[in-house]
Amino acid sequence: MNPKTHGVARFGSFYAGGRQIRISGQPVRTISFTQTAPYEYDPNGLFHIEQAYVQYFIPAEPRCALPLAMLHGGGMCGTMWEHTPDGRDGWAQAFVAQGFPVYIIDNVERGRAGWAPFPGVWPDAPIVRSAEEAWSLFRFGAAGDFQARRPFEGQRFPAEHLDTFIQTAVPRWLSNNDTAADTLCAALERIGPCLLMTHSHGGEVAFRAAARRPDLVRGMVAIEPSGFCRPGEVPALGASACLFVYGDYLDATPTWQMLTRRGIEFRDSLLRAGIEADWWELPRMGIRGNSHMLMMDDNSDELAQRVGEWLLQRY
Amino acid sequence: MNPKTHGVARFGSFYAGGRQIRISGQPVRTISFTQTAPYEYDPNGLFHIEQAYVQYFIPAEPRCALPLAMLHGGGMCGTMWEHTPDGRDGWAQAFVAQGFPVYIIDNVERGRAGWAPFPGVWPDAPIVRSAEEAWSLFRFGAAGDFQARRPFEGQRFPAEHLDTFIQTAVPRWLSNNDTAADTLCAALERIGPCLLMTHSHGGEVAFRAAARRPDLVRGMVAIEPSGFCRPGEVPALGASACLFVYGDYLDATPTWQMLTRRGIEFRDSLLRAGIEADWWELPRMGIRGNSHMLMMDDNSDELAQRVGEWLLQRY
Repeated sequence: MNPKTHGVARFGSFYAGGRQIRISGQPVRTISFTQTAPYEYDPNGLFHIEQAYVQYFIPAEPRCALPLAMLHGGGMCGTMWEHTPDGRDGWAQAFVAQGFPVYIIDNVERGRAGWAPFPGVWPDAPIVRSAEEAWSLFRFGAAGDFQARRPFEGQRFPAEHLDTFIQTAVPRWLSNNDTAADTLCAALERIGPCLLMTHSHGGEVAFRAAARRPDLVRGMVAIEPSGFCRPGEVPALGASACLFVYGDYLDATPTWQMLTRRGIEFRDSLLRAGIEADWWELPRMGIRGNSHMLMMDDNSDELAQRVGEWLLQRY
Repeated sequence: MNPKTHGVARFGSFYAGGRQIRISGQPVRTISFTQTAPYEYDPNGLFHIEQAYVQYFIPAEPRCALPLAMLHGGGMCGTMWEHTPDGRDGWAQAFVAQGFPVYIIDNVERGRAGWAPFPGVWPDAPIVRSAEEAWSLFRFGAAGDFQARRPFEGQRFPAEHLDTFIQTAVPRWLSNNDTAADTLCAALERIGPCLLMTHSHGGEVAFRAAARRPDLVRGMVAIEPSGFCRPGEVPALGASACLFVYGDYLDATPTWQMLTRRGIEFRDSLLRAGIEADWWELPRMGIRGNSHMLMMDDNSDELAQRVGEWLLQRY
């Protein structure tokens, strides 16, 4: 196979989960979709909300029988797996090239899943991530060094392309975590038994969904998860193995110090439940300089290869 | 090539266009992204809005030197080209299989392009399409037959899957048409000289962008466009040929009677400007029963083949 090709035999997409909703009592008004067509717009009627969008890429030469489903973190959608800010291919292509059938999920409210613009249906206002917040929370550099765009020493994230990176941000609702877990279960039903890879906020959504559907999630890769199972959910996990992957600079903020501690506690709870749980802090393995967005860092291909080998040794 | 494969050599995505915006003066508040992490959320800072998302699929065996860019209609995003409500492959796969490099665009505010949740930036409230509106406006059946789900006689749209179809709806802003044309130009710059296929509301956006960038749009396919060039823009079109494609039941509503008349007038203006402009009203060609969503109808593969042949004969 040409190394520049990804060798996709089939691709496509579907929607899963969510619910129908009826809107009534809103006034009809005359609008113009285009300069051509005045139109009586009736905002009432039947709609579908809270679905997930799932796009799949089936490799020409599969090496893993189980599909690999990828769930974005908070404030992002499936595009975070598709390209890096400096224009390289992302983990979607890297895992297809390793022979995984790859399913990219835009969960509730994100990207192509659409969202509900109906007053009161999602009670809170959406939030979206600024460049400043990404800079600090994703550990590109110290908060005080944002204006100068001076990243941490040895930083592997292509910080000079921060302006490109922030184009991937999409709004989110903090009230939708339970719905996100419900809808992820519906997406997993359509995907079938699989390996589930998550990033950041997606960790909480994925661990909770996996605990409810132990028949569907056979293994997990959690990239710097910011949330975990609820108490009592761990023993229900069907995954036979979980891999935790963390980048560098975890001491840089109180948030990441706390999240790392919580991650270790959760990993320990998996071990106690008899689940294989590997913990990769990349600096301890001699790999320094990775950010929270390690699937976009300059060694993203090498990391995808390592994670893929870990999975292929087990599944 | 296996007829069930799409033979994609490469796939990936990028963002294009839009602008940066600074938000200030909003109060900081404590939030929880997950159950794990209380967090000081600052809604102020630097953001990027009004970009387009572009996803590409490069066939293993290209037969056309020019990429084919596909622009969705109003209230939809790129997923409309990827699958049908009854679970068949869409036109994205059909055109890749014919050897076209396919670029699917989510333009401003739609799908993976994200949207701007900042008060006052887009002045109007978003609207979204109900099942009832889709039923009538997309000519699945008479408005009075929605409750009974009784489609027009001979209807080729899989109307029994209407509940699946409405999951593809995403919110839109009526005030963003100018921005959409600007951002489409930016996407076309990244794609390079191409063929541009549009649906419905995308027609107005695409014709206006094509008039501004005659160097980039070499040919056009307009599926039931609901808007066109502005007066004076036609002579600037660089496209050497345009194909207009219309389904059945155009007499069913005053809106479609009017849009068809406008389409004919616009086609005539192209002819006067020396541009080849073919007009396909499918019933006049013996193909009956197509809806406004003809890329999802039960003869979608046959229609994709016909349109592909029209393009390959010219480009």
